[in-house]
Amino acid sequence: MLKVNDNYQKLPGSYLFSTIGKKVAAYTQANPDRKVIRLGIGDVTQPIAPAIIAAMHRAVDEMGKAETFHGYAPDLGYEFLRNAIVENDYRARGCEITADEIFVSDGAKCDSGNIQELFALDNRIAVTDPVYPVYVDSNVMAGRTGTYDEGAGVWSDVIYMPCTMENDFVPAFPKETPDVIYLCFPNNPTGTTITRKQLQTWVDYANKNGALIIYDAAYEAYISEEDVAHSIYECEGARTCAIELRSFSKNAGFTGVRLGFTVVPKELVFEGQPLNAMWARRHGTKYNGAPYIVQRAGEAVYSPEGKAQLKEQVATYMKNAHVIYGGLKEAGYTVFGGINAPYIWLKTPDGMTSWEFFDFLLEKANVVGTPGAGFGPSGEGYFRLTAFGSYENTVEALERIKAL
Amino acid sequence: MLKVNDNYQKLPGSYLFSTIGKKVAAYTQANPDRKVIRLGIGDVTQPIAPAIIAAMHRAVDEMGKAETFHGYAPDLGYEFLRNAIVENDYRARGCEITADEIFVSDGAKCDSGNIQELFALDNRIAVTDPVYPVYVDSNVMAGRTGTYDEGAGVWSDVIYMPCTMENDFVPAFPKETPDVIYLCFPNNPTGTTITRKQLQTWVDYANKNGALIIYDAAYEAYISEEDVAHSIYECEGARTCAIELRSFSKNAGFTGVRLGFTVVPKELVFEGQPLNAMWARRHGTKYNGAPYIVQRAGEAVYSPEGKAQLKEQVATYMKNAHVIYGGLKEAGYTVFGGINAPYIWLKTPDGMTSWEFFDFLLEKANVVGTPGAGFGPSGEGYFRLTAFGSYENTVEALERIKAL
Repeated sequence: MLKVNDNYQKLPGSYLFSTIGKKVAAYTQANPDRKVIRLGIGDVTQPIAPAIIAAMHRAVDEMGKAETFHGYAPDLGYEFLRNAIVENDYRARGCEITADEIFVSDGAKCDSGNIQELFALDNRIAVTDPVYPVYVDSNVMAGRTGTYDEGAGVWSDVIYMPCTMENDFVPAFPKETPDVIYLCFPNNPTGTTITRKQLQTWVDYANKNGALIIYDAAYEAYISEEDVAHSIYECEGARTCAIELRSFSKNAGFTGVRLGFTVVPKELVFEGQPLNAMWARRHGTKYNGAPYIVQRAGEAVYSPEGKAQLKEQVATYMKNAHVIYGGLKEAGYTVFGGINAPYIWLKTPDGMTSWEFFDFLLEKANVVGTPGAGFGPSGEGYFRLTAFGSYENTVEALERIKAL
Repeated sequence: MLKVNDNYQKLPGSYLFSTIGKKVAAYTQANPDRKVIRLGIGDVTQPIAPAIIAAMHRAVDEMGKAETFHGYAPDLGYEFLRNAIVENDYRARGCEITADEIFVSDGAKCDSGNIQELFALDNRIAVTDPVYPVYVDSNVMAGRTGTYDEGAGVWSDVIYMPCTMENDFVPAFPKETPDVIYLCFPNNPTGTTITRKQLQTWVDYANKNGALIIYDAAYEAYISEEDVAHSIYECEGARTCAIELRSFSKNAGFTGVRLGFTVVPKELVFEGQPLNAMWARRHGTKYNGAPYIVQRAGEAVYSPEGKAQLKEQVATYMKNAHVIYGGLKEAGYTVFGGINAPYIWLKTPDGMTSWEFFDFLLEKANVVGTPGAGFGPSGEGYFRLTAFGSYENTVEALERIKAL
């Protein structure tokens, strides 16, 4: 008689963005005449850059001819892509990463959900709070998080590191020592970040305690300040304590193209086991590579034309970020983020809960954002707006908010 | 201090096809003048069909324009693809499956590796022997298989159902009652299959025992006999006991395009938990959808032109299967499969082990196949050749084998 994985029953409600989707669908159905502007989910809106489109057309043509057809991809990804990643994302920044430490995948969401499979079930995980829900939920499904306190919105066996305006969104080392630490900088959802020097203290902390850092750098393309690290490997000692997750979704608009990669340095050895070999084994056993066409698209991201076009694309989103940041300030809100990230994090007004503010904004301004509470208990009283809309919609949304 | 998932250390050696790859690489490096013909790994060689190439070009163009750009896909996959699947793969065969029971993914390997996450760790799994390695290895990684007996090549907590020439490759119901039963028909690696009537007895057995069947139908496009089921849902009662895995890799040559789907009927309820909702939750939390371009490619598989072109593609591979089957017979081998599947399974001659025959064939005929022992203990003494090579190479390989 089949027994199900009962950890699934512990998961409260549905995935955050599904809930938002349903609320918005219900509203638009009831109010078909209203133009709803979505600044909620972190999905991009600009089309794929011309250099990448051209590369995909070429790759599609290759797939249509016997001489240039590509079947199963190499387990870790094509060398042309892994070499481009090493050269541009790491060597150019002085980080020592080699191509056999790069694992190409279909996106950072999958990687951040799957990476916990390498760890024993009795490890304690630590997350910044608020946090991208996948880190916690994937550990819930594995049975690593204990029991859920519905009222407090916390798991008994998860170590939360609050990031709020009180500590400038810089997490403090937790009282209990974690085994796995999830860090995401520039941060989703808060849009804030920490300096290279502050990140170095986390690397030192992890090395001292034998902990592993899962470093999510999905938003590194939006960094504008000099003292912010683009990769954790800019910090000394990170090769012995950190895995880095990267995405092409936000720097190149690949949310519907699907490409990411994970960096697992060979010095990452715990209990005598190299995590690089373990992750390679997982890739070889349970994954079959990103599409050839998509890996060629990824290569084009690093071409001179691709780089120039994407720099412009990122700049366009950051122009939106300035519109949101400035507009909210003008309207009297307390605002964070938006400098090194495409997210703006605001304090909800008048003591509203973040879901109350969600409903308020949807109904009064027809603008969709993301309630901070959906990202963890310390997100309560905050709200996220993203810069991924069109410029026109972003300006209009802010006009509406200012008029409230 | 991070503790690793020590189940990984129980895995013997490396993944089968990595081992073969290394052996072949070593041989070709030592003998650069020899033309090695690969009939080993189940990778296709024919280019993607014109109707599908055209659909991908159109989709690439859409991604390059703001008005037709597609970001994150719906969790379960686009409706246009799920509807085409329902219509062509199920309704046309009289199977009652609805679009919300279809979960589009990046391939059956991922799905067959991931599906076990829905089950408790103390379920007993049963596999036919020999078997596609992913079913067992993914359960090893989860800790569901007990200890490995290197000599016998078996896991203490896995129920093996031998499929050999002695029982016509038809598994018998096991002595111990399993909770999860992995079945793959037409079978990889043996290329044999069972009749619809025989499959019905497995559906009845599963329903009687509260077991779940994971039915891998990746090779259904190669079925040529009337009394073989294309889907397990052709059997009465399958909706309460079976999940079906499907792939576009073999029917449409998508090994490098990456697309598959899983069917999880809503009647699949165990311990009060609907597996459809659990799998939806997993998809929503740990997966972000197959690329838009690839889902459009999948849609084109079901277009009239796509169907006609793929029918021809499958026929070409089956022509190879006949060449291999006939050639081996002629050379005096005992041969199975090749009628409803692109795989030919042969008895190794002169009491050779299957790895001995691998080396023999590589060195004497420069032909790469797959040793049966790599698929499980009952694969010992057998060897797999695939029909996925080019016609010319297949003919040449068989000439060489006949000349041995």
